[in-house]
Amino acid sequence: MESSVSPKTPKDSLVVMTELVLPNDTNTFGNLMGGRLMYWMDIAAALASMKHCGSPVVTASVDNISFENPIRLGNVVHIEAKVSRAFHTSMEVHISVWSEDTLQHFRYRSNEAYYTFVAIDPNGKPKPVPPLQPETEEEKRLYEGALRRRQLRLILGGKMKPEDADELKAFFQSSSPDK
Amino acid sequence: MESSVSPKTPKDSLVVMTELVLPNDTNTFGNLMGGRLMYWMDIAAALASMKHCGSPVVTASVDNISFENPIRLGNVVHIEAKVSRAFHTSMEVHISVWSEDTLQHFRYRSNEAYYTFVAIDPNGKPKPVPPLQPETEEEKRLYEGALRRRQLRLILGGKMKPEDADELKAFFQSSSPDK
Amino acid sequence: MESSVSPKTPKDSLVVMTELVLPNDTNTFGNLMGGRLMYWMDIAAALASMKHCGSPVVTASVDNISFENPIRLGNVVHIEAKVSRAFHTSMEVHISVWSEDTLQHFRYRSNEAYYTFVAIDPNGKPKPVPPLQPETEEEKRLYEGALRRRQLRLILGGKMKPEDADELKAFFQSSSPDK
Amino acid sequence: MESSVSPKTPKDSLVVMTELVLPNDTNTFGNLMGGRLMYWMDIAAALASMKHCGSPVVTASVDNISFENPIRLGNVVHIEAKVSRAFHTSMEVHISVWSEDTLQHFRYRSNEAYYTFVAIDPNGKPKPVPPLQPETEEEKRLYEGALRRRQLRLILGGKMKPEDADELKAFFQSSSPDK
Amino acid sequence: MESSVSPKTPKDSLVVMTELVLPNDTNTFGNLMGGRLMYWMDIAAALASMKHCGSPVVTASVDNISFENPIRLGNVVHIEAKVSRAFHTSMEVHISVWSEDTLQHFRYRSNEAYYTFVAIDPNGKPKPVPPLQPETEEEKRLYEGALRRRQLRLILGGKMKPEDADELKAFFQSSSPDK
Amino acid sequence: MESSVSPKTPKDSLVVMTELVLPNDTNTFGNLMGGRLMYWMDIAAALASMKHCGSPVVTASVDNISFENPIRLGNVVHIEAKVSRAFHTSMEVHISVWSEDTLQHFRYRSNEAYYTFVAIDPNGKPKPVPPLQPETEEEKRLYEGALRRRQLRLILGGKMKPEDADELKAFFQSSSPDK
Repeated sequence: MESSVSPKTPKDSLVVMTELVLPNDTNTFGNLMGGRLMYWMDIAAALASMKHCGSPVVTASVDNISFENPIRLGNVVHIEAKVSRAFHTSMEVHISVWSEDTLQHFRYRSNEAYYTFVAIDPNGKPKPVPPLQPETEEEKRLYEGALRRRQLRLILGGKMKPEDADELKAFFQSSSPDK
Repeated sequence: MESSVSPKTPKDSLVVMTELVLPNDTNTFGNLMGGRLMYWMDIAAALASMKHCGSPVVTASVDNISFENPIRLGNVVHIEAKVSRAFHTSMEVHISVWSEDTLQHFRYRSNEAYYTFVAIDPNGKPKPVPPLQPETEEEKRLYEGALRRRQLRLILGGKMKPEDADELKAFFQSSSPDK
Repeated sequence: MESSVSPKTPKDSLVVMTELVLPNDTNTFGNLMGGRLMYWMDIAAALASMKHCGSPVVTASVDNISFENPIRLGNVVHIEAKVSRAFHTSMEVHISVWSEDTLQHFRYRSNEAYYTFVAIDPNGKPKPVPPLQPETEEEKRLYEGALRRRQLRLILGGKMKPEDADELKAFFQSSSPDK
Repeated sequence: MESSVSPKTPKDSLVVMTELVLPNDTNTFGNLMGGRLMYWMDIAAALASMKHCGSPVVTASVDNISFENPIRLGNVVHIEAKVSRAFHTSMEVHISVWSEDTLQHFRYRSNEAYYTFVAIDPNGKPKPVPPLQPETEEEKRLYEGALRRRQLRLILGGKMKPEDADELKAFFQSSSPDK
Repeated sequence: MESSVSPKTPKDSLVVMTELVLPNDTNTFGNLMGGRLMYWMDIAAALASMKHCGSPVVTASVDNISFENPIRLGNVVHIEAKVSRAFHTSMEVHISVWSEDTLQHFRYRSNEAYYTFVAIDPNGKPKPVPPLQPETEEEKRLYEGALRRRQLRLILGGKMKPEDADELKAFFQSSSPDK
Repeated sequence: MESSVSPKTPKDSLVVMTELVLPNDTNTFGNLMGGRLMYWMDIAAALASMKHCGSPVVTASVDNISFENPIRLGNVVHIEAKVSRAFHTSMEVHISVWSEDTLQHFRYRSNEAYYTFVAIDPNGKPKPVPPLQPETEEEKRLYEGALRRRQLRLILGGKMKPEDADELKAFFQSSSPDK
């Protein structure tokens, strides 16, 4: 079907989400629980991938996430998600999270992450997704790195042998990793 | 303080959680959203690490997670979490998830994961945690692998150079990765 | 159908649930609201009875519950539920609740309770359930007491005359009631 | 303190609550979960007892509850709670629940129940509550029956010997129990 | 259909709702968020209009609302809703909100509001609703004012020219507006 | 304090929120409940006004809202809020809502609204807010209309006589109202 193969840009799938940290989202220290943030990130990323492929999607995997700064009760969380690379039936989504203390006008970076989704047809089977055409320098960089991250996922999931991961080998020989 | 340095076993920190998948936990297909599952896993793992260290904890990082089987509305999710290795102020928690269709008496594996938590003292600073003493074969295997996973986290987080990751190098030369 | 009449053990239906007490679960004193606990107990007990009978179930009744110790915000609630006796289409489930202050390593008993569920067929009508075969001493004791508790339910529900409640009469003549 | 000993009427503590049954309140059959109803009943009854004593309260116990009719998704639940008897530091609250299918103009009785609450002073200790002065015939009937129900609670809680329960003995010799 | 045209009284549609303000309903000051109150008001008003017309309804519009007094965490919110006028396929519902500090026995007015709903037939199209027959003086006053409020809605929605709003003109010439 | 009086632009306060419509957000028809949408709008608008004034805020009033198109379960709601005019201690926020069926690539306008917030100092008293400097044509139009809307609020709240509302009179003589 042609409409499903015309390429799309990362911008086409951009989703911006803003959440206020309420009492039930926090631990006894008044900090946002990591799991609640991952829940919001999953929704933002699922929406971005649905915008890319026009189908329902299921979460296939989540890459390593580091949480850098605690996010406080009453602060605001901003989540930006856009597709960073499309494979045959799956899409990698790049998610960037930062937070804001609206009272102090203080804004701080929280973390970034990669979620992968699979597009689903009406019978619940994976279906092909449109290719992605990166436009900006950063989008191109994310697009390039996606192969390496995918090999890492396959190895960690036991579906690829480390010695076959050419992209990843290059990464392990470089001295300035940027994930 | 002596009580904080006497070793503990993984069993000491075991947490078993059971959740019923309700409508608001699902996407429009009636499958559990990945983000909701990560939220539950975070709570189970936080509880396990709090049992280990007797302090509040914050989520520091989450390793790659693959979601293998969709979990249906009305099914039951079982989550087992226990500390797999203690470092100086942080603990890696191993989480195992399986699901059950109580009506069909059908039980299926969902995924496993590693979350890392940091223990926090009353001033919000990291504090030392007791060492972990693995007992069973599986606990020893998880304990051994923890160094390798930690190096991967440090590299992915940009805090270690790939060429310094001795444990990980061994992993990339082995042909049967088990994460 | 034969599979539905082969006896099952209490262990077959065991459900273990762990819940963290979050702000919205508490009253203005920071104690878990009784109603929230009954909600969790209902889900745990419903799951146990569904495991026993392999059908959907509806809550038919709840026996007297006493709440012994207040449960604090940030504490952890453990709920264990297993079928204590099966009747024709209904099952009594025994629920035991204790709580834990993970930071203080302090564990305290909260309460126990009996919920009764009816198995439902696809037309919404009650359907027969498998018999229960108790194994341990405690399971046998719970199994024995179930008849007495059932008579009390029938009397309190206006469905049995007190003078016909033979089991219960014996109970009222004993001097060491254990419910 | 005088204001705390002037008697109050049941009407003074009346609470009327209306809840709409939403998807997350239901089991997979689209019926309200018993535990969710007990949660709402607990809040309504706690509010009624707070109105009676002007202090915070904690749930002390819940009497047997029978659920008579399933309540459907989209239906409306009406809960009426008022204090039925005051003891020294505790209050019994009578709760009456009925439901309504607003589209079919069909109204049906769900169940009634008795919850008991203890009044709490600022140090978390039980404090005396005002006496109750029943007014209507039904309020007097509920007031009378409260002693009998209290003895049953004490026996079931292992705090009274059955042979000392004079009120309850009379009940077991009557042939038309009304709980 | 005759049953749908026999007139109904405001009392027929009365809905009384009571909600306890829990932590997640409040902002960082411990005051009920305006949006949560509007959510509760919408449910109460939707139920009132469903009782009037015996059909599902959708919210069509909400009139100006002023929030007079902040409502505190732990306080109780009472919402009374009843249909104030029926038009062809829509109904205006009058909502009155007051709050109560149960511990201080202090009761305070919060706000009042008008929500408008449209009755929906099984195909999702607007359907006629029964006329309303006001009974008390206040009900008659609300009934009379409804035309004026409706013109204001139509003008604000860009569906009526200000100069055609006869009712409203009279209002703008009066010196004692009562909304 | 100087920092509180330097003017700000509408863009400075822009908040973009994206929400997925989940089962519990919908009525029995599978449409988003109006009250849930008003809840989200309140949070988005409160965040925008907090960004403008750097203080906590309380919702003071909400202008008429018309809901134009039903929003379906599984669709996505986009909410954009920015301050449209600052008064002495209060701010009017303009909110624009549109929705998206991500599967059908269909996007539709839902509604717009004006919420007013008051800035609060640490003692809970109103405090002055910075002035607003509109930049774009649309921002200037919203800024101009704010006086008229404010007069309408004061009249509807019984705090201004209709004959004193000069701005509003002009509006009622114009033939092309745009709210």
